[in-house]
Amino acid sequence: MSKTSPQIFMPFIRLNRQHTAPLYSQLYEQVKQAIFNGHLKAGERMPATRTLAQELLVSRNSVFQAYEQLMLEGFLEGKKGDGTYVMQLDNVQRAPATAHAPQKKRTALADTVQYKDASLSDAILLGDSSLEPPLPFQSCVMDMQHFPIKVWARIAAGIYRNLHRMYLGYLDTQGYLPLRQALADYLRVNRSIVCSPDQVLIVNGSRQAINLAAQLLLKKGDQCWMEDPGYRSARAALTRWGGAVCPVPLTGYGLDIDYGIQHYPDARLAYVTPSHQYPIGGTLPLNERLKLLQWAAKHQMWILEDDYDSEFRYNGRPVPALKGLDDKGHVIYIGTFSKVLFPALRIGYMVLPAAEMARQFKKLKSTIDRQSPVIDQAIVAQFMQEGHFARHLRKMRALYRKQQDELLQLLEKHVSKYINIAPSDTGIHLIGWLKQSCNMDLLLQKAAAAGIIVQPVSDYTIRFKQPQGLLLGFTGFRKTEIEEAVLKLKRVLAGM
Amino acid sequence: MSKTSPQIFMPFIRLNRQHTAPLYSQLYEQVKQAIFNGHLKAGERMPATRTLAQELLVSRNSVFQAYEQLMLEGFLEGKKGDGTYVMQLDNVQRAPATAHAPQKKRTALADTVQYKDASLSDAILLGDSSLEPPLPFQSCVMDMQHFPIKVWARIAAGIYRNLHRMYLGYLDTQGYLPLRQALADYLRVNRSIVCSPDQVLIVNGSRQAINLAAQLLLKKGDQCWMEDPGYRSARAALTRWGGAVCPVPLTGYGLDIDYGIQHYPDARLAYVTPSHQYPIGGTLPLNERLKLLQWAAKHQMWILEDDYDSEFRYNGRPVPALKGLDDKGHVIYIGTFSKVLFPALRIGYMVLPAAEMARQFKKLKSTIDRQSPVIDQAIVAQFMQEGHFARHLRKMRALYRKQQDELLQLLEKHVSKYINIAPSDTGIHLIGWLKQSCNMDLLLQKAAAAGIIVQPVSDYTIRFKQPQGLLLGFTGFRKTEIEEAVLKLKRVLAGM
Repeated sequence: MSKTSPQIFMPFIRLNRQHTAPLYSQLYEQVKQAIFNGHLKAGERMPATRTLAQELLVSRNSVFQAYEQLMLEGFLEGKKGDGTYVMQLDNVQRAPATAHAPQKKRTALADTVQYKDASLSDAILLGDSSLEPPLPFQSCVMDMQHFPIKVWARIAAGIYRNLHRMYLGYLDTQGYLPLRQALADYLRVNRSIVCSPDQVLIVNGSRQAINLAAQLLLKKGDQCWMEDPGYRSARAALTRWGGAVCPVPLTGYGLDIDYGIQHYPDARLAYVTPSHQYPIGGTLPLNERLKLLQWAAKHQMWILEDDYDSEFRYNGRPVPALKGLDDKGHVIYIGTFSKVLFPALRIGYMVLPAAEMARQFKKLKSTIDRQSPVIDQAIVAQFMQEGHFARHLRKMRALYRKQQDELLQLLEKHVSKYINIAPSDTGIHLIGWLKQSCNMDLLLQKAAAAGIIVQPVSDYTIRFKQPQGLLLGFTGFRKTEIEEAVLKLKRVLAGM
Repeated sequence: MSKTSPQIFMPFIRLNRQHTAPLYSQLYEQVKQAIFNGHLKAGERMPATRTLAQELLVSRNSVFQAYEQLMLEGFLEGKKGDGTYVMQLDNVQRAPATAHAPQKKRTALADTVQYKDASLSDAILLGDSSLEPPLPFQSCVMDMQHFPIKVWARIAAGIYRNLHRMYLGYLDTQGYLPLRQALADYLRVNRSIVCSPDQVLIVNGSRQAINLAAQLLLKKGDQCWMEDPGYRSARAALTRWGGAVCPVPLTGYGLDIDYGIQHYPDARLAYVTPSHQYPIGGTLPLNERLKLLQWAAKHQMWILEDDYDSEFRYNGRPVPALKGLDDKGHVIYIGTFSKVLFPALRIGYMVLPAAEMARQFKKLKSTIDRQSPVIDQAIVAQFMQEGHFARHLRKMRALYRKQQDELLQLLEKHVSKYINIAPSDTGIHLIGWLKQSCNMDLLLQKAAAAGIIVQPVSDYTIRFKQPQGLLLGFTGFRKTEIEEAVLKLKRVLAGM
């Protein structure tokens, strides 16, 4: 169905009218040359004679003559009613069509470059997958089978039909206004955050949000409380922008605020996941939240609240966001659609304490990538306005609760000899704590060989050692896949 | 058509089973409170009784009783067959529903913050528009009336229909592979760049590309050649990442390479727009290109080639990209779909000298925003594969050429007394050079009052003074709009 695109510019063809050689023969020579040196590849369609004649400002007959000669000699072939194509040249020594050979010469400078950003370890690409499907226990896999694709497609189709009415130029960097309005409404009712759309900034996922905050608010050496264990990308962002990361251990419920106060009283910023501590779990209780807010107000500390999967709470009532309690304007709230819609969307958002502050963040975002893509924002806005978002969340919450229960039962049945496990009130993964310590590298190797992906808690720790534990994602897989995976896990654990 | 979304979480409702007050009366009190303090707004739909009962784990009857009492007292109203809504309370002193009042208290810290990035002047938001249509002579306005919206919508619909087959999780940070393949093919034929998809990195527009390059390649104080006048965002990015910007004047054709060599022989990077110098125009001739490449190879200098609107060349044959001549691997190529499709898409791309180098860039991008959105990438890939991209470019090139001719004739007829103007071989704006110098601020003020937007060349200069000139964008407007705008311009110029 899809065809090689009709060629257009071909800048390598340059005819010289002062030259003694006729134009058709110059054209013939240059096309042949382009085939030899790889600018034209076998199977590619040549422009129609009329198009090329217009492009080169020559008579159509000149192009015709050149094509005929090239067909005669086997460089091109004409397909009836379907244009002219470049032939496969088996018996000709061709220059490489891809950059494989030239690369040898080309890497001269590239090979020697010392990239200055030392925090760019390969680990950052963990989970940077190909198009292959994810393997069981990988976390943050969304269940797309239950995504309302038809509704989404219908909304998208309506927006595309009316695309001419949308402004598709350079738009407000702060984000598509109807989406910011829908978010302000959503946050007010569901996260108890009262804010105006002026305080909301649309970003490309939560990583960008953390980077923006760190870049704008931190001076070199500013101390930052960081949950330990905690979200690695946040740590990397704080460090990159000059922050001195101060590891703060956890209580059973999240950040140990007393520890932070005692050990790092001068901290300028605290990164927290109060709704669902990442990755251990736990929800910061109200009195701890108030203590954190009071400390921040008294000591001019910023709080970066990453509310990444608060929507999936299975037991008890949802907890209002920390931002909802923030009457002094010290909390910067970060939310994302990656976990509740799908990650490939790349839409996150921030709520800043004031509109003027949002304006500063917007200016910075503008210099970085000017704005986020608009059409997807319009789709999400309508998806929210029409109530599909709320319905989808409700559905997924019930589904994920069921999937967690199923995994818990399976783990209880098959691997309770090796790991302790407790249900999680929130989120899309569980943690299995090993009953006996073992060689973790070996365990991970064996798991990978068995076709399951378990991430160790130790990947997230900074200073404070945790017992050995494994992250077990339970969303986005079929029941049979999870059943098989638990049996694989059993074999791996038994073999340690 | 669109309805307020069905409420779901409402975390502000917290029933206490130990309390002596019955559950329905607690619910009644808390909903009333939420209406008073703005967590629930007039016109919002309440959850269905069944839904709320499930959510709160109470009997449906309790919810029913509470709703009835609230309706009786005029806090809620039932609409037949259409749920229950929050009423408008005219006679009640309500807490503010938006953050206007709380902001007063809230800005305490926000007001005092000293944003550390001093390069964030408000000018960066220039062109940061609302949803209002652009005004004549604004540059970089795309002609969406001629955009093949139906084709685009058909491709999009097909992709949305098959969304379940696409992987919508966290994908390869480098970009959607079929798009990178389509780009490698396009660049080979149309820009004479032979590269493999491994060398291509998809980014969120060219600003991100320039930021990534500056961040990875520059050390503090590294000298960077910068065209003067030139692209301001590039200058800001180089400065932000430690580069010492070295203004290099222009010859009639672009960067004055001899000047750069003579004055800044130690430069580590050169930012250039060789296909169409921004904003003055001019195309770097072949011998200058070769000189630049030789110098870069000998002195280990990176060349950042921003090829932002090379597709719109009206006279003569297209010029191969500098990158196409780069056999030593010193050129980093930057392209964008903003000018050839539409800016709101936010898709740009880089071609790195080698796959390993692309990997380093990809790692950095991963830490910044993990990846670019995927669905739009898939749409563009198919748009290219099916040949629509090439067709669209051809069509727009003819259209823009015609629009430039029309503007030239109008300017000749009406304002040739005041400005000198010459056709441009490339691009989507012209420059009108004032014959007599004048108070530019006043001119801009008068133009704005007349409803036209003209940007002065001086906005782009660093050190080297240019004669007074105005950028006149000619794309994206109807013929009558441009006619009127030229007459407005005449009145403005005559009044100076």
